[in-house]
Amino acid sequence: MKRISEYAAETEAALLALNLSGRTPSSLYAPIAYALEAGGKRLRPVLVLMTVDAFGGQVDEAMRPALGMELFHNFTLLHDDVMDNSDTRRNRPTVYSKYGANAAILSGDTMLGLAQELICLVPDAALRRVMDVFNRMSIEVYEGQALDMEFETRNDVTPDEYVEMIRLKTGALLGACAEIGGILAGCDEKVCAKLHAYGENLGIAFQIEDDWLDTFGDAATFGKPIGGDINQAKKTFLYVSGMAAGTEEAKALQIAMEMPAGDMRVKTVTRIYEKMHLDESCRKASASYSAKALKAVKSTGLPEDRLESFKYLLDRLSGRKK
Amino acid sequence: MKRISEYAAETEAALLALNLSGRTPSSLYAPIAYALEAGGKRLRPVLVLMTVDAFGGQVDEAMRPALGMELFHNFTLLHDDVMDNSDTRRNRPTVYSKYGANAAILSGDTMLGLAQELICLVPDAALRRVMDVFNRMSIEVYEGQALDMEFETRNDVTPDEYVEMIRLKTGALLGACAEIGGILAGCDEKVCAKLHAYGENLGIAFQIEDDWLDTFGDAATFGKPIGGDINQAKKTFLYVSGMAAGTEEAKALQIAMEMPAGDMRVKTVTRIYEKMHLDESCRKASASYSAKALKAVKSTGLPEDRLESFKYLLDRLSGRKK
Repeated sequence: MKRISEYAAETEAALLALNLSGRTPSSLYAPIAYALEAGGKRLRPVLVLMTVDAFGGQVDEAMRPALGMELFHNFTLLHDDVMDNSDTRRNRPTVYSKYGANAAILSGDTMLGLAQELICLVPDAALRRVMDVFNRMSIEVYEGQALDMEFETRNDVTPDEYVEMIRLKTGALLGACAEIGGILAGCDEKVCAKLHAYGENLGIAFQIEDDWLDTFGDAATFGKPIGGDINQAKKTFLYVSGMAAGTEEAKALQIAMEMPAGDMRVKTVTRIYEKMHLDESCRKASASYSAKALKAVKSTGLPEDRLESFKYLLDRLSGRKK
Repeated sequence: MKRISEYAAETEAALLALNLSGRTPSSLYAPIAYALEAGGKRLRPVLVLMTVDAFGGQVDEAMRPALGMELFHNFTLLHDDVMDNSDTRRNRPTVYSKYGANAAILSGDTMLGLAQELICLVPDAALRRVMDVFNRMSIEVYEGQALDMEFETRNDVTPDEYVEMIRLKTGALLGACAEIGGILAGCDEKVCAKLHAYGENLGIAFQIEDDWLDTFGDAATFGKPIGGDINQAKKTFLYVSGMAAGTEEAKALQIAMEMPAGDMRVKTVTRIYEKMHLDESCRKASASYSAKALKAVKSTGLPEDRLESFKYLLDRLSGRKK
């Protein structure tokens, strides 16, 4: 098996080889090429490829559907950035900010169309299963985004509801990547369901960890200023867990979150989180989903030496230390 | 074979039976149900169903993919209305106007996801061909919309460029509907290509006719106020044909189109169109695409009595009189 960085480098080269920047009309394709140039971990195609590899499939043949999953992910970012009115992503202007809302909508739709073309480039025998997984996943992702937007106007979101939202919004796609990898390697449905569970729980662990990092992380490692979620009064795992306590501290948390955005709000809310030991419970929650993911992939019976990539991703994304 | 109105009524009943309004989260599905309640001709599923029927396929089995094409069409309307900042469609507020841009974007994405689920409900033997047609079509539709938006800021659009834009934006979907109908009826690729040509040229004829009606039609029959295109300075077939003449009249046309929006502009531009005989050449162009469509479907060798629905659609949509 290859290293994660090798799968990522091959993905990057294959993305470039699609030569999307050369297509016309350029008003449609230039924003797509711009979005894909931003780089990133290429986590989704890496997950497809490493799963195919681990289960004895042909990695080369899986590259195009793997790229399709990366394009799908980037399509969701283009539309999310319009909906969230986001100007910056990965230290660059978003497509929405650089090219406008219309370009972000239409180039996003086109990325989805291109994603599907790539995802359909699987053997005939796999097409039905792959499309079923892809279609179900895409609707789950949209449902997750809808819940995320609904939560903005609610103050009674429970931790369970929050986890369901991130399962849909983040977990479903990673679950589909691992599952499609399994399908392409010829795994049966039971194994594929376990692979799906790996990806889904990886996604949940990753998102909860991200919530933790946004408040308690190190700005340099995290890559974003600390406290962004608090300043935007986002319904994170920390916040919904705190509010669910229903204690005097929860009331204080709600009041603190209504302070004017700024350092004072960030400090006050952070202090309440610490007092409520939410920093610890958040990391514990992330670790528990990470453990679920590991258990799921182990239950496929994959030999120990082939589990390494799956463990590595969990360690890297959920921050769980061995 | 059934009548067009029967296919449309069955489509309407099958759409209702999907019970999309009952799904959650309601913030996502209520706008979808609202959009589909608007009715309309249901032209796209009707075209799938009548093609399946004419070529001896199972109409019942084609209903779900046919509904998928209707959902795809409505998804494009949701996104187009955001991009065009349109408040009204079929005499009702658009989803964009009633629920906001975010709902129109995300519910639109979800309609596309639902469309795909339905379109995949075809026999395994047809899935590859159906998906290839669908994927290619979807990207053509987006390219058409991109060109349409590019044309807004250009004053040198040629009639050929205009026809290519409407071929992509309107023709591609109707072409795909007829082609998928052929695939589901077991037609070979040659026949399917002819069916595609029927739908594509039907779409072009329909759009050119629509341009004519917007200026020279009867408000009651057309269902919209006359002169809307002129007031919005839209690059219609009439306008780009006039500008392409390069004459003194073309210069006058350009100046007239820059008058303040209102009755005076509509009257002046209409008078120039008439002076340039563009009303006649527009109808001739529509009739010529209509004739191409008829020739294409006739070349499949379909018996005369089975051609009736195909002729009926052309007469009804392109305004061509027998």
